[in-house]
Amino acid sequence: MTTALLDTLRRIVGAAHVLTEGDLAAYEQDWRKRSHGKSLAVVRPGSTAEVAAVVRACADAGAAIVPQGGNTGLSVGSTPDGSGTQVVLSLTRMNAVRAIDRDNLTMTVEAGCILQALQETAEKADLLFPLSLAAEGSCTIGGNLSTNAGGTQVVRYGNTRELCLGLEVVTPQGEVWNGLSGLRKDNTGYDLRDLYIGSEGTLGIITAATMKLFPQPAAQLTAWAAVPSMAAAVRLLGLSHQHLGAGLTGFEVMGQFALSLVIKHMPQLRVPFAGLDGAPPYYVLLENSDSESEEHARQRFEALLELAFEDGCVLDAVVAESLSQAHELWHIRESIPLAQAEEGLNIKHDISIAASRIPAFVEHTDALLQREIPGVRLVNFGHLGDGNLHYNVQAPAGGDAREFLRAQEDRVNALVYDAVAQFDGSFSAEHGVGVLKADKLAQYKSPVALGLMRAIKQALDPQGIMNPGCILQK
Amino acid sequence: MTTALLDTLRRIVGAAHVLTEGDLAAYEQDWRKRSHGKSLAVVRPGSTAEVAAVVRACADAGAAIVPQGGNTGLSVGSTPDGSGTQVVLSLTRMNAVRAIDRDNLTMTVEAGCILQALQETAEKADLLFPLSLAAEGSCTIGGNLSTNAGGTQVVRYGNTRELCLGLEVVTPQGEVWNGLSGLRKDNTGYDLRDLYIGSEGTLGIITAATMKLFPQPAAQLTAWAAVPSMAAAVRLLGLSHQHLGAGLTGFEVMGQFALSLVIKHMPQLRVPFAGLDGAPPYYVLLENSDSESEEHARQRFEALLELAFEDGCVLDAVVAESLSQAHELWHIRESIPLAQAEEGLNIKHDISIAASRIPAFVEHTDALLQREIPGVRLVNFGHLGDGNLHYNVQAPAGGDAREFLRAQEDRVNALVYDAVAQFDGSFSAEHGVGVLKADKLAQYKSPVALGLMRAIKQALDPQGIMNPGCILQK
Repeated sequence: MTTALLDTLRRIVGAAHVLTEGDLAAYEQDWRKRSHGKSLAVVRPGSTAEVAAVVRACADAGAAIVPQGGNTGLSVGSTPDGSGTQVVLSLTRMNAVRAIDRDNLTMTVEAGCILQALQETAEKADLLFPLSLAAEGSCTIGGNLSTNAGGTQVVRYGNTRELCLGLEVVTPQGEVWNGLSGLRKDNTGYDLRDLYIGSEGTLGIITAATMKLFPQPAAQLTAWAAVPSMAAAVRLLGLSHQHLGAGLTGFEVMGQFALSLVIKHMPQLRVPFAGLDGAPPYYVLLENSDSESEEHARQRFEALLELAFEDGCVLDAVVAESLSQAHELWHIRESIPLAQAEEGLNIKHDISIAASRIPAFVEHTDALLQREIPGVRLVNFGHLGDGNLHYNVQAPAGGDAREFLRAQEDRVNALVYDAVAQFDGSFSAEHGVGVLKADKLAQYKSPVALGLMRAIKQALDPQGIMNPGCILQK
Repeated sequence: MTTALLDTLRRIVGAAHVLTEGDLAAYEQDWRKRSHGKSLAVVRPGSTAEVAAVVRACADAGAAIVPQGGNTGLSVGSTPDGSGTQVVLSLTRMNAVRAIDRDNLTMTVEAGCILQALQETAEKADLLFPLSLAAEGSCTIGGNLSTNAGGTQVVRYGNTRELCLGLEVVTPQGEVWNGLSGLRKDNTGYDLRDLYIGSEGTLGIITAATMKLFPQPAAQLTAWAAVPSMAAAVRLLGLSHQHLGAGLTGFEVMGQFALSLVIKHMPQLRVPFAGLDGAPPYYVLLENSDSESEEHARQRFEALLELAFEDGCVLDAVVAESLSQAHELWHIRESIPLAQAEEGLNIKHDISIAASRIPAFVEHTDALLQREIPGVRLVNFGHLGDGNLHYNVQAPAGGDAREFLRAQEDRVNALVYDAVAQFDGSFSAEHGVGVLKADKLAQYKSPVALGLMRAIKQALDPQGIMNPGCILQK
């Protein structure tokens, strides 16, 4: 059976694109190297028709399919289990930009396009594709869609979901649904598009998408502010919405300890205000995009910061004087994950809470963790504009990080996720569920929601061959 | 059985809220009075628990349920058939605003809240709820969500879908899914929210929702421009996106004939530029919302219009000098439906096409209709910023409109919808499918899409009691 399936797959995509030997680690282990699987084969179709034929062959053989893009996900959603029976279906060869429609402000692209390549494609057309996240050099738009990726510009442009107008999908039966569309309004039946977005390859395979584009802003300015508390950061967010309107394209928060790790491990970076004794507890990185001019953007930023000083929600602030200074400020923010890795293993969370409740959540959960695990260190940073925190937990100073994780990871997760649930938040804001957090979904979603999800899965993939164990536990 | 069900319903909601006698036309006939049904009863539950109990009672009795809000829909989606066996479940008593969260920019409201009341609730909190459409004085937010209503500010704020963060839903089994959420990022499983939005009461009943709010803009300005062609209107749209950015909150197009009807039937209205011989063929109403000041808004508008004159895509333009002048301009736009009704019965379409293809579509379809039905008159207007046209067809001048509709309606619909399909457009941009256009869905959607929709319907409502015949034909 296995040999017959492999032969069929080779006939469909060509023998060169059915990988069964050599080092397949790039396909079989996840980005953070937490899961090491073994596939039956890695298949790399080159067209939608080939994807459909591969799916039909696998369905006929009863073989499970794990769709994969850049394999940069953080929740183990695109790698095979250890059984050696699952087929990894890699979309990376499908990387054509099928069309750019300037007057409609859309582009239609294949699932395997690298996110950064799409940003560049848009830029060449003097337009903006605003999706931006750490893995943009390697992740694919298909993966972004499957996980509904977030990133740093969500406060203005929304998640990947909000940037997508239409999809092309291969169903678990190997049929092609052509739902590509450049329409901004289309109320003809159920919203299949949004059902597939965020379904992490468990309901079908996204092969192409029509994505929104935007005019390039005339200017983009970055500011950095020290704030006296998380509550002050939330107040600054409100003032920014009011005074910058849709100009507010970035609003990131960083805790003092997170920045102290950057200062420690990347001493070449100059981190404003954060290195001193008695440094303020939180910092905010703001971005203002202006359709008029840099001068106007600066004037609006200064007016906002003046108000914020008066209000007391900002202690000190600097507006970048040049693009390179702006890049330096963003670079500090983006260096936090690396700095915390340098400091040692840690327990990561990607949570969201209503912005209004974040100050109380942080106060509650910081105290809880300190009480339960004396000396524990909290690396707290994230996209406050979207209520999204990367609330990470580092071993006490000087402790053995590996031993800390072994002993405490489950307990820390329970404490954090229970607190998140208590504050009506989400245990996965932008990283998806994958296999890694499928147990959390089972634990924290209501039975009614789980029942609805299972009914949908059963209806669309009755054979259960699409990415089994991802999102919904087997 | 029927008596037993009515008794049960009376026990659940109180006898006063089970209507079976007297004039029930307001519940049993649709807004445009095209469909006259007969219900078993109109039930008006006062809480989510009562809705759930009513649904369980109907499910037990095998009685179909037609959920209803303000009953202002244009596609016959909220009235019973003529069988006298269906239960109309009216949500209008559930009209509480459960919470406003200023710092999170959200409000949680019950399905029966009147849209205009929600606009006013937001305004009182010095915030903006931007959903705005003709029926706002009577329609409910539950209906807006069920049909994913559009309206006049979609170009900036999106459809109802984009304004919703979470839902509370009663399933066809009478369970309550509490998916209320003020989260802007939440990637934990399938997107149930967007599946219910736009499903027109066929998968469950939306009882409450958490909706986004926005800061009030500091100023809102309106302009009116005469343009030489539809292509020029699309060019003006592109310039407006580029130079106003997210300040562009309205972009409406109106054909000269549509405005001539306003001039004829509402002579008290002053319609700029349109009344003259050789008047330009199209007009655009633009709205610019500014987070800074009226002066700045005016300056940005003037800069845009200057560029547009130079480009040639604007022939003449006026910027409203006062709020009352702005209201007058909007009033002209909003008077078109009434003016065309005064002129006589007509055949309405609510279509969308990619903005880039609208000029070619209009040229093609105008010519086609003129060729097929000499003398036919086209009342073309709509939300060009969203690619949404109300492309309506009026009988030749002096003809018998009723006879024209009887003889030509099916043929006109076929010509228009075939052309829409040819241009990859949608036959229902913002009005939904209802019972009225269920045949069009069956005709124009791909078999794959229809199969997916039927599978979802069967999975979530296996008994088929939720609004049968709406969206999917029986």
